[in-house]
Amino acid sequence: MSAHEIIEEAELKTLAERGLRALGVPEGQARDCATILVLADLMGIGTHGVARVSAYGSRLRTGGIKAAADMVMERLAPGMARLDGDNGLGPAIGMRALDEALDLAGETGIAAVFCRNSNHFGPIAPYAYLAAEQGFASLIASNATTTIAPTGGREARLGNNPMGFGFPNPGGDPVLLDMAMSVVARARIRNAAKAGQQIPDSWATDREGRPTTDPNAALAGFLAPIGGYKGYGLSLAVDLLTGLLSGGSYLTHVSSWQDNPEAPQDLGHTFVLMDARRLGAQAWLAERMNDFAAILHDTPRAEAEVPVMLPGERELDRMRRQKADGIALDPALLEELRALAA
Amino acid sequence: MSAHEIIEEAELKTLAERGLRALGVPEGQARDCATILVLADLMGIGTHGVARVSAYGSRLRTGGIKAAADMVMERLAPGMARLDGDNGLGPAIGMRALDEALDLAGETGIAAVFCRNSNHFGPIAPYAYLAAEQGFASLIASNATTTIAPTGGREARLGNNPMGFGFPNPGGDPVLLDMAMSVVARARIRNAAKAGQQIPDSWATDREGRPTTDPNAALAGFLAPIGGYKGYGLSLAVDLLTGLLSGGSYLTHVSSWQDNPEAPQDLGHTFVLMDARRLGAQAWLAERMNDFAAILHDTPRAEAEVPVMLPGERELDRMRRQKADGIALDPALLEELRALAA
Repeated sequence: MSAHEIIEEAELKTLAERGLRALGVPEGQARDCATILVLADLMGIGTHGVARVSAYGSRLRTGGIKAAADMVMERLAPGMARLDGDNGLGPAIGMRALDEALDLAGETGIAAVFCRNSNHFGPIAPYAYLAAEQGFASLIASNATTTIAPTGGREARLGNNPMGFGFPNPGGDPVLLDMAMSVVARARIRNAAKAGQQIPDSWATDREGRPTTDPNAALAGFLAPIGGYKGYGLSLAVDLLTGLLSGGSYLTHVSSWQDNPEAPQDLGHTFVLMDARRLGAQAWLAERMNDFAAILHDTPRAEAEVPVMLPGERELDRMRRQKADGIALDPALLEELRALAA
Repeated sequence: MSAHEIIEEAELKTLAERGLRALGVPEGQARDCATILVLADLMGIGTHGVARVSAYGSRLRTGGIKAAADMVMERLAPGMARLDGDNGLGPAIGMRALDEALDLAGETGIAAVFCRNSNHFGPIAPYAYLAAEQGFASLIASNATTTIAPTGGREARLGNNPMGFGFPNPGGDPVLLDMAMSVVARARIRNAAKAGQQIPDSWATDREGRPTTDPNAALAGFLAPIGGYKGYGLSLAVDLLTGLLSGGSYLTHVSSWQDNPEAPQDLGHTFVLMDARRLGAQAWLAERMNDFAAILHDTPRAEAEVPVMLPGERELDRMRRQKADGIALDPALLEELRALAA
């Protein structure tokens, strides 16, 4: 990778916020959006960080996403709400849903907010982190553009739908699982294609649904879900939970960002929050969470130099370092963002 | 397989109930337990059906499970409760938790019941089916005895923890996902060992954490989780959700049924129920669920004779047939059950 520029968290957040404001996004939504994108960069999830601002920009300009979305929150039950995102920016919709779910779960112990009419809402780990910091366990998921064929099929009918779980630890790091349902991300196959390298035949199938080691055949085909029919089942369950139950689009009804950038995607997200403080005292939870982590860390290693880690551990280590030392980003990206924000 | 005996659902349920009563299980708990075990047999999940009665029996006799458990339900919030199972029969505890979660979710829209001090509660699909029949979507999970090594480790520290999702369809079949986190069940590796066959190297590792094609080395080693670190992460998330948050045991604190049959396992289960009727009318949900299924069923097939199916479809087809024609079971098993019930 080329040289990095180091930028302070607060400065990056202001830049991202100003960039979004320049694209017509109202103040509160720009702030929410910047919160998620900067957390993604802090965690080292650069593909879902402030680099997204320019991608959002091109879709905001073509009208594929509404800059000044008029979201509508509907309370459906004491612990359940539905948010219509009015085709606004995904992270702004996600943050609104998270806030509502935290409020409701604070009252009822557990709450669900179903979002529809949304767009790509960034990675899940930042939302799960914010929830955990406030003492809440979470299940957060979203559907996505179709890239996976159902088991036994040879046409993409399901998204590589991400799902995450977060668990608070008042005495240390929360556990943050954030995963999609494919064996590898499409980007890794694109990288192999660029480098002219073969891929393992477990990563994807060609357009006929046959396993392939050719990255170009894989890019024309479908991502393989983890565990075959199990990953297919999980991806389908996430689509039902987020797209179908929310009243949003699902399966092939989801419009593709790449093929059809002017059309609303109508993605669905679901935020389930649980107030862990109802289950026991903070000291009780901290002791159990630290014991849980210690049991895993102490596992005899398969390779002496490779530690056993918990989900989110690498991202939280990175966040701590970058909060202290600044965030390393591509200078060209920062230049683009500064030009937009000016 | 040898010859089957065909038995009516109602007769099998009575037999299972009487068998459990003969082992000292109180009437209500015996009935609940029989409900889950017979549903498992109806769905063709024979390993988790009435065949379990004799396994429960030997643990009831040694005191490893309490026949007349005195469960305690604690309300923690309007939508949250905790059930202490008093080391009773898993399916009796599971049914009690399901009933409570349905009641609470009926009031608040979504509810969670955390169980601790429990034992093997059977398969998840029957619980998800009962919830779906009443209009509720569900996330149900349990932890289990350790059989999986964390990514990078070479000692079993996690269970092959099952997780399931259920989605109601007022106009047809619900969707029922019920899966554990390993590529294959341990039973398939045992069968390969018995048959003297090799196994694919993706199924398990030997005791040093190296992939193996030798089923005996695999049985001495660890089950491979789906998608490597993703399946590890899911299994760990299920343990946090069910074992840690409930106040039950987790990871290596879970006692092994096989190695230590007299000790309470202290398993945890979690039932999250969502009232789908709050999200829209029955006709709206039925139309969307049927459209969802049709989109998947209509996928062009990879192999002409192999249909694309949804999770639970095979089990629900089997249930319909066996409800009409009777349940096919091993005559020796029925003989044993009749002797116990007499």
